[in-house]
Amino acid sequence: MTDAPPPAAAPPAAETEELNEDGTPLSENQKKKRAAKAEKERKKAETAARLAAEKQAKEASEVDFAAQNYGPQPLNQSRERTGRTFNLISEFSGERDGEAVMFSARIQTSRSPSAKMVFLTLRARFDCVQAILAQTPEVVSKQMVKWAAGLPAETLVAVEGTLVKSPVPIESSTVTVKDAEVKITKLHVISAITTTAPLPFYVDDAVRSDAEIEASQSTDRPMPGLPLDLRLDNRVLDLRTVTNQAIFRIEHGVCRLFREYLDNEGFLEIHSPKLQGAATESGASVFKVSYFKGEAFLAQSPQLAKQMAIAADFGKVYEIGPVFRAEDSNTPRHMTEFTGLDLEMAFNEHYHEVLDLLTGLFTFIFQQLPIRYAKELALVKRQFPVPDFLVPDKMPRITFKEAIAFLREDGVKNADGSELSELEDLSTEQERIVGRIVREKFHSDFVVIDKYPLAVRPFYTMPDPANPEYSNSYDFIMRGNEILSGAQRIHDAPTLEASMAKAGVPVESMPSYVNAFRAGCPPHAGGGIGLERVVQFFLGLGNIRRASLFPRDPKRLEP
Amino acid sequence: MTDAPPPAAAPPAAETEELNEDGTPLSENQKKKRAAKAEKERKKAETAARLAAEKQAKEASEVDFAAQNYGPQPLNQSRERTGRTFNLISEFSGERDGEAVMFSARIQTSRSPSAKMVFLTLRARFDCVQAILAQTPEVVSKQMVKWAAGLPAETLVAVEGTLVKSPVPIESSTVTVKDAEVKITKLHVISAITTTAPLPFYVDDAVRSDAEIEASQSTDRPMPGLPLDLRLDNRVLDLRTVTNQAIFRIEHGVCRLFREYLDNEGFLEIHSPKLQGAATESGASVFKVSYFKGEAFLAQSPQLAKQMAIAADFGKVYEIGPVFRAEDSNTPRHMTEFTGLDLEMAFNEHYHEVLDLLTGLFTFIFQQLPIRYAKELALVKRQFPVPDFLVPDKMPRITFKEAIAFLREDGVKNADGSELSELEDLSTEQERIVGRIVREKFHSDFVVIDKYPLAVRPFYTMPDPANPEYSNSYDFIMRGNEILSGAQRIHDAPTLEASMAKAGVPVESMPSYVNAFRAGCPPHAGGGIGLERVVQFFLGLGNIRRASLFPRDPKRLEP
Repeated sequence: MTDAPPPAAAPPAAETEELNEDGTPLSENQKKKRAAKAEKERKKAETAARLAAEKQAKEASEVDFAAQNYGPQPLNQSRERTGRTFNLISEFSGERDGEAVMFSARIQTSRSPSAKMVFLTLRARFDCVQAILAQTPEVVSKQMVKWAAGLPAETLVAVEGTLVKSPVPIESSTVTVKDAEVKITKLHVISAITTTAPLPFYVDDAVRSDAEIEASQSTDRPMPGLPLDLRLDNRVLDLRTVTNQAIFRIEHGVCRLFREYLDNEGFLEIHSPKLQGAATESGASVFKVSYFKGEAFLAQSPQLAKQMAIAADFGKVYEIGPVFRAEDSNTPRHMTEFTGLDLEMAFNEHYHEVLDLLTGLFTFIFQQLPIRYAKELALVKRQFPVPDFLVPDKMPRITFKEAIAFLREDGVKNADGSELSELEDLSTEQERIVGRIVREKFHSDFVVIDKYPLAVRPFYTMPDPANPEYSNSYDFIMRGNEILSGAQRIHDAPTLEASMAKAGVPVESMPSYVNAFRAGCPPHAGGGIGLERVVQFFLGLGNIRRASLFPRDPKRLEP
Repeated sequence: MTDAPPPAAAPPAAETEELNEDGTPLSENQKKKRAAKAEKERKKAETAARLAAEKQAKEASEVDFAAQNYGPQPLNQSRERTGRTFNLISEFSGERDGEAVMFSARIQTSRSPSAKMVFLTLRARFDCVQAILAQTPEVVSKQMVKWAAGLPAETLVAVEGTLVKSPVPIESSTVTVKDAEVKITKLHVISAITTTAPLPFYVDDAVRSDAEIEASQSTDRPMPGLPLDLRLDNRVLDLRTVTNQAIFRIEHGVCRLFREYLDNEGFLEIHSPKLQGAATESGASVFKVSYFKGEAFLAQSPQLAKQMAIAADFGKVYEIGPVFRAEDSNTPRHMTEFTGLDLEMAFNEHYHEVLDLLTGLFTFIFQQLPIRYAKELALVKRQFPVPDFLVPDKMPRITFKEAIAFLREDGVKNADGSELSELEDLSTEQERIVGRIVREKFHSDFVVIDKYPLAVRPFYTMPDPANPEYSNSYDFIMRGNEILSGAQRIHDAPTLEASMAKAGVPVESMPSYVNAFRAGCPPHAGGGIGLERVVQFFLGLGNIRRASLFPRDPKRLEP
């Protein structure tokens, strides 16, 4: 933060002969007087220079009593292992007043109101503590203070010091230890900042809510708004915010809860190949791969493999893995690669056995997240304020026709003013309205829509036995956005082949898939969930990229 | 199993004029006599045909009292949901003699010693029960028996019947219920076999060990040996063996134990992108993807992303996901796509903090598998007999130099007869020998080899501070095969850049990666584990493809 002042410019050399002020040449007397004066000044300057040099030499030779207490650590190549205990900032409090602590942290902000003192905020993951380094006899030298004041933000430091109870709560909103600060006695750099240009933003700024940024514009310290692209271009820096640390803990939480529920239900986790021999499901949106002397394709979902696992008698399977979509969609809810939570399950009598399980799964996830991740949710909400996610004990389930009826009641019409059809798919905007209506009617931010029109679903979807224009398929909607799509699948080979023929999908294009059903397959249903969408909509993040560690879209392959 | 007999061939039409045996034409008298005889025979045949037709008609019109008890079920389109309880074969036993049961299963084998009886073995996942369908007044008709005898193997059926205690243990080695069988009263087809050709093998044959197959060759029922390629070409069928059902339960178990241990240690699960903007790590073995108007590359590991997550202060991360290797290796332990268990962890003082964690992780996995998956392990061992995996309480850890010393002691030399070098990597064969020696010396099937020569490790490996020819890197060896490779990584940007320059990797080829360290990064270490290898070597499967649901290699992209 503190740059060294530029070196003083050298005085211009006197190259011209001296003259009187009126321009006439000096007399000999004048010259002598001037020479004597100059000689006196030269001696004076010489003395001053000698004194300055002596002072500098004295300072340089002066033993810095704090030399061992600061400076860069040598490169850690694992030379020794003392087994020292490192403390956690999260455990610091005023109650531990006077205790010695040792910890590693990033310098988040640095402020040096005088040459004798530096105030730092020190961050480690979710936690941030205020610290003071003040000139102190025999412990902290003025050299140490000067050096510390020059450390840039994000420098990773090892800190030793004492916890001091703070008489008043610490104001800064990004400091999490409110009743104590650290009085630093030793400070070493573990890892320095070696960028040629300054870092593009401060993590302390990257954690502000839109409201904070807007409110700050009329103050003497207006905060910068950080465009998403700037953050994503510098994602490693951006991920250091407490908000992002919390978002990815919650994302991990969704996966943990998903697995915990399904493991308890006897599901088997599978890992299906992403490299496919043929462009399956939909040829248009599949990525092609050079495969030795031939070609391969990236799986758009584990759909075929998980159904084949059911035909292979695994009964209940799930997979968490990447899925790839070669869609040139540049929207806040599309990526070319995302994490699919997929499951498939054989049932005995009715696909609602599976739908009940899926609803139970999401009820469990939504009810457990606020319990197990209360701290993380509060941190995210600081930056992205959003109403609590409403989860009733019994999740509402409506039919597609009922959803259309809700929209009609609400006055929604087609663009040309005509009535909505009961056989056309919902638009993104219509899903949003259904979400709003369901929230009002059922006090739920989640709804299952069952029985979609057959024509808007993939060829492997089982028709509704009561009405062949509809199907045994469903979507799950969170805050008005689809996060799961699923259905009973056609498990009977002749029926599947007829459906493929109708859809114009040649049986020869997916022989292994069709053969799996020819060898007998139990009735089954399942669904595919977009992990990042669940996180995006649960937390109200506005853009799916915020829920992806290193997002990929048609325009982004880095970092 | 029982095919209908071929239709009787029609008698050849008499087209030539009748002659005496000596070739002379018949007299008129002879002709009359013959005509009378023919007329008599015609009438006799007519009568016989009429009687046969009457009998057939009578049989056809005969009320089959069992008609409701068998036949195909209508296609399950989820018409009704009765909530009936389905029983599990695993819970059948002689103690439940007389109890009514209802369950679904595959016909594994079928044998009909008479027209009045069919013996079936019925399989559901790991479990198999013997069943009998016998003609019984008012319950099982002869038509029902005949129909059941014609059902091919692998037909999925719904069965109702009664458990009957078996007076003697049931002999068949693939039947798991040893003291009871099912007396069938109702039998319906849930899903029929609709292949045009017969299935390529019986699941009952696919579960035999090599020893069983060999021993059977001298008996009256020699079993076929099933080549791996035949199995993999028909993987859905092959996966139905109890052995495969068990293998993939155990594979799930390895993932569960991996996550359980790391979750408890405070690790964060991440999902890093498989689509990369540049060919990283090693350009030669990377798959190229068409990416809209440009190109992308498939990640060979999450190496870069997980290190960037450490630079982003996540502290401890793991990922389970696919990794892609464009290596034209056709060996029993290479695939082009496999499941990577990757982790990375910041440490305080020494990379042995991470090595200790990794060793603890594997000790946990190896000790828990036999406890939690005892049934599955026994099932796999039936087909693939292998000595128990030896896991001492303290896993042995040796240095690379010690490994070389062991090999030298054992008399291992280079191909040209010279002494082994302490600076060249171990060959696959040498690893195998080290595994054998370690088993003898330490009674362990697992060993950590630490401190590999620097030259044989990737550019991001931290050199050993004591000897710059070595490095802070390690491999884990299971039954003489490498399953993990890991190291302390270079966390210091200038050191990394120097190492890249030395290795000929341009900094510009991976700017996001290098920038991550320029913004400061804690010292860290980690490792990458091949999931399928762990399963392969733990179970002694001989070929890694047996541990992959749908394996991929240079020659296989299907099914």
